[in-house]
Amino acid sequence: MINMTLDDAREKLMALQRRMAAYEHAMGIIYYDGCTTAPSGTAGNRAATMSILSEEVYRQSTSEETIELLEFLDANKEDLSSDEQRMVYLLLKDIRDMQKIPMDEYIAYQELMVNAEDVWQKAKDASDFDMFCPYLEQLFAYQKKFAKYIDPDMDPYDHCLNQYEEGLNMESCDRFFDQLRSGIVPLLKRVSEAPQIDDSLRRGCFPEAVQDELSHYLMKLIGLDLDHVGLSTTEHPFTTSLGSHLDERITTHYFEDDFAYSMYSVVHEGGHALYDTGSDDELAYTVLDGGVSMSIHESQSRFYENIIGRSRAFCKLIFPELKRLFPEHFEGHDAEELYRAVNKAQPSLIRTEADELTYSLHIMIRYELEKRIMHDELEVKDLPAEWNRMYKEYLGIDVPDDRRGVLQDSHWSSGLFGYFPSYALGNAYGAQFLAKMRETVDVDACIASGDFGPVNEWNRGHIWKHGARFKPSEILDRVFEAEFDPAYYIDYLEKKYTELYGL
Amino acid sequence: MINMTLDDAREKLMALQRRMAAYEHAMGIIYYDGCTTAPSGTAGNRAATMSILSEEVYRQSTSEETIELLEFLDANKEDLSSDEQRMVYLLLKDIRDMQKIPMDEYIAYQELMVNAEDVWQKAKDASDFDMFCPYLEQLFAYQKKFAKYIDPDMDPYDHCLNQYEEGLNMESCDRFFDQLRSGIVPLLKRVSEAPQIDDSLRRGCFPEAVQDELSHYLMKLIGLDLDHVGLSTTEHPFTTSLGSHLDERITTHYFEDDFAYSMYSVVHEGGHALYDTGSDDELAYTVLDGGVSMSIHESQSRFYENIIGRSRAFCKLIFPELKRLFPEHFEGHDAEELYRAVNKAQPSLIRTEADELTYSLHIMIRYELEKRIMHDELEVKDLPAEWNRMYKEYLGIDVPDDRRGVLQDSHWSSGLFGYFPSYALGNAYGAQFLAKMRETVDVDACIASGDFGPVNEWNRGHIWKHGARFKPSEILDRVFEAEFDPAYYIDYLEKKYTELYGL
Repeated sequence: MINMTLDDAREKLMALQRRMAAYEHAMGIIYYDGCTTAPSGTAGNRAATMSILSEEVYRQSTSEETIELLEFLDANKEDLSSDEQRMVYLLLKDIRDMQKIPMDEYIAYQELMVNAEDVWQKAKDASDFDMFCPYLEQLFAYQKKFAKYIDPDMDPYDHCLNQYEEGLNMESCDRFFDQLRSGIVPLLKRVSEAPQIDDSLRRGCFPEAVQDELSHYLMKLIGLDLDHVGLSTTEHPFTTSLGSHLDERITTHYFEDDFAYSMYSVVHEGGHALYDTGSDDELAYTVLDGGVSMSIHESQSRFYENIIGRSRAFCKLIFPELKRLFPEHFEGHDAEELYRAVNKAQPSLIRTEADELTYSLHIMIRYELEKRIMHDELEVKDLPAEWNRMYKEYLGIDVPDDRRGVLQDSHWSSGLFGYFPSYALGNAYGAQFLAKMRETVDVDACIASGDFGPVNEWNRGHIWKHGARFKPSEILDRVFEAEFDPAYYIDYLEKKYTELYGL
Repeated sequence: MINMTLDDAREKLMALQRRMAAYEHAMGIIYYDGCTTAPSGTAGNRAATMSILSEEVYRQSTSEETIELLEFLDANKEDLSSDEQRMVYLLLKDIRDMQKIPMDEYIAYQELMVNAEDVWQKAKDASDFDMFCPYLEQLFAYQKKFAKYIDPDMDPYDHCLNQYEEGLNMESCDRFFDQLRSGIVPLLKRVSEAPQIDDSLRRGCFPEAVQDELSHYLMKLIGLDLDHVGLSTTEHPFTTSLGSHLDERITTHYFEDDFAYSMYSVVHEGGHALYDTGSDDELAYTVLDGGVSMSIHESQSRFYENIIGRSRAFCKLIFPELKRLFPEHFEGHDAEELYRAVNKAQPSLIRTEADELTYSLHIMIRYELEKRIMHDELEVKDLPAEWNRMYKEYLGIDVPDDRRGVLQDSHWSSGLFGYFPSYALGNAYGAQFLAKMRETVDVDACIASGDFGPVNEWNRGHIWKHGARFKPSEILDRVFEAEFDPAYYIDYLEKKYTELYGL
């Protein structure tokens, strides 16, 4: 290393990141294939490959050569660009975290995840939590161990939260959820006492092939570049970049009796894809490519899904296309009915189908359950009963089976503990972004005309282009020019639902 | 290495192969995704990853540690099992070949292939050979260089042939094609002078979704395990194993105006998949997994496609299902008409759609063209004109455009030069396998009853289970218990077409 010039080291830094991106591409596509296309009996085969590739990543990332390179760059950071400094910081942090995990446990965990996802799918189909329980126990056990290895002095659940959102902890979550709760609960009560919305317009017979056409219409409408963003179907919709933001995939799930589920999945995942693919091209194949954190990501996906997609103007905009695709179904109906149908607020079983008002309550339940498991205050085997009890308490409804209860989300099968709060935070960030955006962009006029250019350019300039250049809190500071304030979101909900329900 | 025990080395041999299988899985699925699902603008992104992963494979395969291990095992081969001996032989041969290619050229070639496939697709769509020409020139140039590096004393086209079929060369190909030609050309002349078959039953309107149902029916019928064999659609049908024979994928292409194209693609690729997935499970994740050579592979695919699939008994067997799926189309028709329609012999433009009788002529054209390019007797830019001239000479037809001419096959875009003869050899092997199989299996009764068990078990026991344990010539010797003799195939064609056309 003594003989290495800074320019050499800089080049090696880029080569290192390109190599890591290639492995991520390989592992990402094996995962993606497993969810979309692979025959049902092939999970073991994928697990075998994943364990070998993740071992390679571990070995290469923690090699003496890599660490020497990064430490050399870190020691010379004043001569690096700010992007390079951030790359070195993020890489070193990741590697130091990874080094704290014994290699055999890291590999076993990767393999467990592939199998757990497979078993979760089957358990969900069979509505049988017991089938999934031993896998989930192991996943939580690993997460607890890993948390201890990496941040021995941190609360293990704070460690989980911090993974998806630099700086997030239970204290700020608790405060945030308290604020939300005190805004939402009384509003929901007023809504539930008002005359209810008839949302039967959602239901009918919508063939997959026609819904697929609708998906592509929506993807183009919100400004996705279909040469670089693909669509597939999966059990649970998600978005992933393969190798770089130049190859982005979103997925949806079609229910032939309800067009709105997939419609809003596509717009939601489309928001993620806009964020990812909006990275400056020079960030491709670096750790700065794509989004910076899950809550900023969710702020974008839920901005497009809800703030735009569930607005009156958007419903009016897309109504003619819906009528063209499903002429019999929409005959004699209008855009206002659509707007009302897709905004009906009522306690329900499934998070991804929840309205904006009750959505955060679903998140709070998951947050509380994860917190208790990570603190050994709840056993995994008791999750279904506790899940059902909390749905009764928070939402007043009975959970009929595990498929529509504790098995509904894929997150836990992928080891994503501490992820859920980012959805609720994302909602709240989005409302504050909207307030800021309105200072320079006529958002309603954009939606009304179907020209999302100005909205997308605002998001691109303020958020997307930077990828992971800035910490989430820096992004928020730069955009808000003020503190984060959940009141924007509560205010948004208040206005929307007061008008909608004539409160 | 001095301290290494033989048992250690054996274990490392298996670990090495598992690692190589993982990289093949990764690169295989990136290729597969590119053909099936990826958005159109993502080839460059795939190329970036492929070049890095192939560099890793090159580096790891040719590392001192790997070579030392294999040479140690080779030196102690009398203590190895015959399977292990064959693994070491194949690995060492591959590595020694690979070592002769400079790493930068190897990587550049991998990257070129990804881009070439992408450009070929686009050039084919646009029917524009000029678009593809510079890529094809480079692919041929690399192949010539690689042939010189690996076998400096061998004719470069013999090297190509030998790659897909250990021991194959131009001399034996020329002799084989001469025999075929002298059997086929006069037979074809008699057929062309006889009253022609009406094959209009093939044509109609067959929605993709219903053809997809037919595909799955056929896959199950011929005995594929759908838990381990998947189906997708691509421009050009193919079969690939991902990681091991435990995850096999076949593809087809649906033409909504002709059900028979996809039907026979599925049965053809299904034959490949039966062979691959029929490997003994203990061969998974080793170099002995899957088929041994392209011609043995094609002997299986074309056995199921033609000898079984285009038999009168098979047409009778599947007719009720066709009638169920396409009731209006098949109303008033019978299985005999189907049998005649799918066996009509006539010179045509597209190899994959050719009947059994003219098929080998398509192969001979490609063989002659490749031979001349590899010998610098023909320039790539002159390929379309020469292609068209030879189609006129061999088949008596005019090629209307490059899409239906020189751009029709994907092989060259994947650098598969010397591959085509294996199709014709496979046909001929298949006919000789059939003669042998008939000694113990009532093949016609199996087809008639739809019970492919005895046929599949014969193939599994004689061919599939062994994977690449034996050289192709050893397989043939063991099964035939005699010399390979193309007369079996010519005799098969003679009997079939004499009866069909009442000659």
